[in-house]
Parts: sequence; structure tokens; C-alpha cells
Amino acid sequence: MKPSRSNEDSILETIAQSAGASQRNRAARVPLALGVGDDAALFRPKPGHETILTCDWFLEDTHFLRDKHPPDAVGWKCLARAVSDIAAMGGVPRCFLLSLGLPASLTGGWLEEFLAGLQRASRRFECFLAGGDTTRHKEILINVTVIGEARTGRTILRSGAKPGDLLYVSGRLGEAELGLLLVKRARRPASRKDPLLRKHLYPEPRLALGQWLAARGLASAMMDLSDGLSSDLPRLCAASGVGGRLEARTIPAVQTSGWNLKGEITPLRLALHGGDDYELLFTVPPSKARLVPRAVGTAVLTRIGRITKKRGVVVVGDDGSEHRLAPGGWDPFKARG
Amino acid sequence: MKPSRSNEDSILETIAQSAGASQRNRAARVPLALGVGDDAALFRPKPGHETILTCDWFLEDTHFLRDKHPPDAVGWKCLARAVSDIAAMGGVPRCFLLSLGLPASLTGGWLEEFLAGLQRASRRFECFLAGGDTTRHKEILINVTVIGEARTGRTILRSGAKPGDLLYVSGRLGEAELGLLLVKRARRPASRKDPLLRKHLYPEPRLALGQWLAARGLASAMMDLSDGLSSDLPRLCAASGVGGRLEARTIPAVQTSGWNLKGEITPLRLALHGGDDYELLFTVPPSKARLVPRAVGTAVLTRIGRITKKRGVVVVGDDGSEHRLAPGGWDPFKARG
Repeated sequence: MKPSRSNEDSILETIAQSAGASQRNRAARVPLALGVGDDAALFRPKPGHETILTCDWFLEDTHFLRDKHPPDAVGWKCLARAVSDIAAMGGVPRCFLLSLGLPASLTGGWLEEFLAGLQRASRRFECFLAGGDTTRHKEILINVTVIGEARTGRTILRSGAKPGDLLYVSGRLGEAELGLLLVKRARRPASRKDPLLRKHLYPEPRLALGQWLAARGLASAMMDLSDGLSSDLPRLCAASGVGGRLEARTIPAVQTSGWNLKGEITPLRLALHGGDDYELLFTVPPSKARLVPRAVGTAVLTRIGRITKKRGVVVVGDDGSEHRLAPGGWDPFKARG
Repeated sequence: MKPSRSNEDSILETIAQSAGASQRNRAARVPLALGVGDDAALFRPKPGHETILTCDWFLEDTHFLRDKHPPDAVGWKCLARAVSDIAAMGGVPRCFLLSLGLPASLTGGWLEEFLAGLQRASRRFECFLAGGDTTRHKEILINVTVIGEARTGRTILRSGAKPGDLLYVSGRLGEAELGLLLVKRARRPASRKDPLLRKHLYPEPRLALGQWLAARGLASAMMDLSDGLSSDLPRLCAASGVGGRLEARTIPAVQTSGWNLKGEITPLRLALHGGDDYELLFTVPPSKARLVPRAVGTAVLTRIGRITKKRGVVVVGDDGSEHRLAPGGWDPFKARG
């Protein structure tokens, strides 16, 4: 007699099989003593390391649109954004837990494509499925917990910035927001292959850069840009008890030429207020500034301002005028502007 | 100038303050190097220990009813059920991540009461808030990740049961399901003080029992009963590659006398199919059976059957007749029977 199998068990099995395929490929690197299938997962921490813990919602209608976003991109991005928090501490991702709420109608093809994207991300980031929980729900609910590691005392926190420190950012800001605008404007579901949507659909957490900065002790404070520079920089400043001063002309903004955008959607506004870039924002003491290279791997680094003793964040315009920067990025408890 | 504060930040602050109050009380025992307020939390693992990871959904309408269940009980139970998975491995809970989706209208009184219940559970289980994620949602969404520890190699898995092992359960089964029936039947919200609802509203994970069994190496396999004996025992048997044989008359079932229950709701059915009991189900080799006491702390232990070589789970009735046990417990991908 075969052991009885409920529907929930069969969904867990589908997920475990998808994960198993990727875990067998890299068995030597997987830090798991026990994965999917018991009451809980077991993780063997490395001696001399701290464990980094983070979790992130990824919800239909709030964070993605079922009829516009490919399931493969949903699978990739739900892991990428949680892994980005590990990058922001200078850590190495190890494994993750997947909590999934799904309508019964999506447990076939949608789930398969979702798991394919999730598995590609899992291999890319070397972050493997350890367990999770599934439930039925009328909308798609996703929550991802990522477990990472870093040498004890080597993580880079938000709270270490000092007045006078220089402010840097990786990559180009506003590209993901522009991608979102293009996806919303289109009548059809987004194409997985569209290079203009790459950063919106398949963000790459800056793991190598975060680890590079942590290993060298260069950054005094760091965080990832998930809600937009205008929302996130004030958080770093508040955690450090300082203020910030941005030079508008130095901010590496998305290129929008060729796009028929409304007047109020400018490259600078996209760069200041656009969410989902998953670039790293970090501060460096002036004495170490000469050690900051132009790029680390594929991540181009740009100096965009400095930390001030005076609280609050100001943007200095091209004409030298100063404006207080009000958070205009992503806040799920406000209607989106 | 005060640093700007978005709404999401203020909700995170409310949560962190609630947690901070409990963490200061037990600062020496908190294993966190860094809690709420950075990109991620930091956890210092104990040398010689494995980390246990588990996460659980707790969703409005699926797992609780907003108009019937006190917010305080929602806060307690969302942590208790995830901690129960740590108990089921024989581990010690250390910290948790809270992912919360809330309607804007509930960020006041409801949230406060919810956090009060969560904080009481956090203190009771010595499991402290390390971080989380909040978002706005039209329904209440809760996901809790618990991080626990156990000496490396000392956890009790589902997969160790052998034919001939004796099957034990803690406590009395079906009490939580009866509580749910009473709550659903009532016209008013459930009272926090009603002793008949205690097990349904404020379950106590069997942490002491799990750790006692793990320390002595008595149990060959263990899991917690969250979905009901008829759903969970087949999972333990499948993981171990064995079958099970239950003696109906020995199963410690809820007492229903005095309740005007419909004919099909019998104590045995509640005990077999009722969910949410969070008792421990474990197997013991016959050679060690004499070492199993009648109770460990407040957890009374009852022998309810044995493990068989033949797959499948059967229940032996009072008259000696044998019936195959079909899962009738909680499966979120089936309509609830």
C-alpha cells in the first residue's frame, strides 16, 4: 500500500524535487544537514561566523502583477530581493525558506515556471532551498527567508556612518522603476527576454561588491536600495544619527531617451524615488576614499555626496540650490504616488 | 531637523519597541548581535550546535477569523505553532522573524493587542524578535520564521522509526478542534479567559518534552501534531518507510460530555482528525520502553500503537476490527470537511 498523500504533500514534493535537482549539482557546497520534508530544516553554521537572517514579502498586486509578470521572473525576484539584504551586510547567502500561498488553479504550469526561475536564482546566488510552508490562498502570497553568514564582527551595518564620510552607490539608479513603467504600460505580459526589463524582472543582488567591501573594511555603513534613494538614505542616516548631502549631477540615473515619458518622469526623479534597484549604498571615511576603485566586478561605483553632522537629507541641484529630500519611494502603507 | 519617517518605519518601530521591552528583561539570554532596524538580523550560533529553521503561515480566514479570534491570541498562536516545529526536533527556540501584512485600519489597537500576545509568547518560549518585514494588505497576513538550536546530531527526525517501535503521544487530542467548533458556533468573539478555549487560542508547544527526549536519545522518530493524527502519522511513517497500527481505545481523546455535538463529531474523530493540538507524536524502540515515564513535566504520555513493516496506517477498533486510516485532518489545498 502506498502511503497516503494529501494535496499539500504533493506540492511540497514538487518544490523539493525542483530544489533537489539543484542541490545534487552542488552537494559539497550545501550547508544543510536536512532539507525539505521534516518538521524543520537543519543548518550547520561555520565556526567563527555569524548567521544573517532576513525575510521579505513578495505579494501579488503589491509587488508583482499576475497577468503582466512572467512566473519565472516572480520566482527569480522573490529570492533575489531577500538575498540583496545579505549582500547589504557584506554576507554570503547559504539557504532559504519558501512560504507560498497559491490558488488551486496555479499549482500546475504557473508553479512549474515559478520554481524554474527560483531554481535558477538559487544556483546563481548559491543559496539553496531548506524548507518552507505551503497553503491555499485566492491570491499568490510569497514570503522568503534567507539565511546567510559572515565572519563574526565583519558585517557592515547601517549605523556606522560618520559626518564627513563619502557616499557611494553602485550601478545606475531608476532602471527598475522605468522597467515597471514599461510593463504597466504594455498591453501584453512582459517578455522574459526584453533587455530593457532585465533589471526590473531579474535583479542581481550585489553580492560580490558587498563581500569585497566587508573583507577590506572599507565601508563604514551600507544598505541596499530597495525602496528608492529618497526613502532608504534617510534610514541609513537615522540609524547612524547623521544627515546626508547629495549632489544631483553626480547621481548615475537611468537613461530615458527614446521613451515617450510624461514630463514629471525625469531620469533624476526615477533615480531618487524609484524602487527595486537592489544597488548598494555605502559610506567610506575620507581617509580611505583613494582605495575605492571605479568598479568591483560588474558594479560601477559612483560618489554621489557625503554624510553631514546636520540631520536630514538635502539634494544640491545643478545651480547650487539646496532642497530637502522628502521620501518619495516605495512605502506599502502609503498609496503609491 | 528630525529624520523623515515613513508609515512603514513607524510600524516597524512599534514592533521593535514591543520586542525591545521583552528583550531588555532577558538581555543575557538573547543570542542576537543585532535585531530589528538594519537590512538583516545577526545571530551568534552556539559552538557545537546545529541551527534549526522553520516557517509557518498564519492567515486570516485560513488559520483564524478576524471577528472571532482575539488579536492577543492571534499573536500568541502565530509564534507558538512555529515554535512547536522546534519542539518536534528536540531543539531550543532562539529567535524569530515576523512578516506582517496589515490593513491600514488595523495598525492601531488591533496591532497593539496582537503584539502584546506575541510578546507574552516570546517571553514564555524564550524566543525573541530578530527582524521582519511589514506591508499593507487588505487581509491580515502573518508568516513567522523561528530559528532554534540543538547539539549537533542530537535532533530527532521523522525518519528514524523502525518496525516494532512503540508509538506515543503527549497530552489529549482533539481539544483544539473542539475549541474551534465552539468559537465558530458562538455569536460573539471568543473570550480570552474561557478555559475550554485555552488549547485552541493559546497552545503551548511541548518544548520541555522534546528536549527531554532528545537529551536521553529515547525517541527514534518524532513530529508535532499540527494537522491531525490521521494526516501527520502517515507523514512520519512515509519519512521512515514504515507503517503504523493505532489502538483506538488507547488514544487519549478530548472529553465532549456536556456539549451538544452532532452525531458525527465523536471524541475519537476529533482526536484522529482534529488539527492544531501541537502535541508530540514519537516512537520508542521496545528495548527502551521501560524508560518512558507517565509524564514529563505537564505532558502526560500515552502509548497508542506501534510501527509496522507493512506500509499504511490502520486503526484497530474496540471490537478488534481493522480500518485503514485515511487522512481527514487539515490540508489547506482541500476544502475543509
